[in-house]
Amino acid sequence: MIELYHCDGARSFRALWMLEELHLEYRLHMLPFPPRFRAREYLEINPLGTIPFMIVDGTGMSESAAIVHYLADTNPEAGLSVAPVDPAYPDYLNFLHMGEATLTFPQTLYLRYTVLEPQHRRNPQVAGDYRRWFLKRLDGAMRMMAGRDYACGDRFSAADISMGYAIKFARALGLGDDLPPPAVDYFTRLAARPAYRRALSIEQENAVE
Amino acid sequence: MIELYHCDGARSFRALWMLEELHLEYRLHMLPFPPRFRAREYLEINPLGTIPFMIVDGTGMSESAAIVHYLADTNPEAGLSVAPVDPAYPDYLNFLHMGEATLTFPQTLYLRYTVLEPQHRRNPQVAGDYRRWFLKRLDGAMRMMAGRDYACGDRFSAADISMGYAIKFARALGLGDDLPPPAVDYFTRLAARPAYRRALSIEQENAVE
Repeated sequence: MIELYHCDGARSFRALWMLEELHLEYRLHMLPFPPRFRAREYLEINPLGTIPFMIVDGTGMSESAAIVHYLADTNPEAGLSVAPVDPAYPDYLNFLHMGEATLTFPQTLYLRYTVLEPQHRRNPQVAGDYRRWFLKRLDGAMRMMAGRDYACGDRFSAADISMGYAIKFARALGLGDDLPPPAVDYFTRLAARPAYRRALSIEQENAVE
Repeated sequence: MIELYHCDGARSFRALWMLEELHLEYRLHMLPFPPRFRAREYLEINPLGTIPFMIVDGTGMSESAAIVHYLADTNPEAGLSVAPVDPAYPDYLNFLHMGEATLTFPQTLYLRYTVLEPQHRRNPQVAGDYRRWFLKRLDGAMRMMAGRDYACGDRFSAADISMGYAIKFARALGLGDDLPPPAVDYFTRLAARPAYRRALSIEQENAVE
């Protein structure tokens, strides 16, 4: 049985979404945010204290993009993975990594220095630096994907779950009106997927304070 | 022919190192840092303006961890990739993503707000926040890898190139004395590889101002 540790709205949503795409069985553990301060016992499960954490066959995974990658590759019949011999493979890997490494981290800075930190540690300069940084990279990514419905052309894949969460996060942070129009259209396609909507409902039904 | 765009010391070193591990032919283009300001014509090649950029079979890749992943998977005879059916696959993907997404980005903040920004925009608080953030995550990663020589047990793989560059970067930033001892030992093993040393020499021979 797959075990998934998740916080409401956190990047672990990628794993939840993929599990729903694949119709896999799993046990969901919802934690208060941030768990390393508000659920100290979690450090015995994940020494990093971060979200997500997925345990599969006794091994823990802590990187959300790696988790969707793993689940897609080990359930190839669902067709959400791309094979190394496929001409779309460079794009598949590039956007799978980009969604997290390039498009999610900068937003965590915006969140931290506008909301999470106590007033005296907030920092509008740094928050603004990484708001701009994120929007520029997202714009560049959309230009790399110009003319395509998905990261790998006309087929939805794990790479879109990685990218899609980054746009979902931006909307949650109040950056929805700043997004480049192709990113808005792309996100509308992704959010219409039944598995995305199921994942949202499951998250809401299991929310913890 | 593979084309690689690289700046001295930048994360594109991962790609250079992997190309040397695989003994592939490639054309190296060294650029001044940051290229989006100091080599404007580069934006016509990579709309993101970021480093690395690798062009392979007409497709551009901009994510350094995705590049090493791609090169390992498409040259399986070198044994630097791990297959989905292998029990080490969750660790392989997790550390491949972690080296960049979790362990490199926070260091770019430290670099930016201690060195790259003009004096009035530097920020010791934010630099300190992400110095600590990086060191804690690296410590957690080393605990996840406890008792192993490499990310996937006793065999070197693309995941170690992703992780290894993060430690190389920390040393270049002056954080060498703060590293957890297992990270120092791990890096010593990695830096002893002939391909790592060749990549360093090639970088030096081709340096631009």
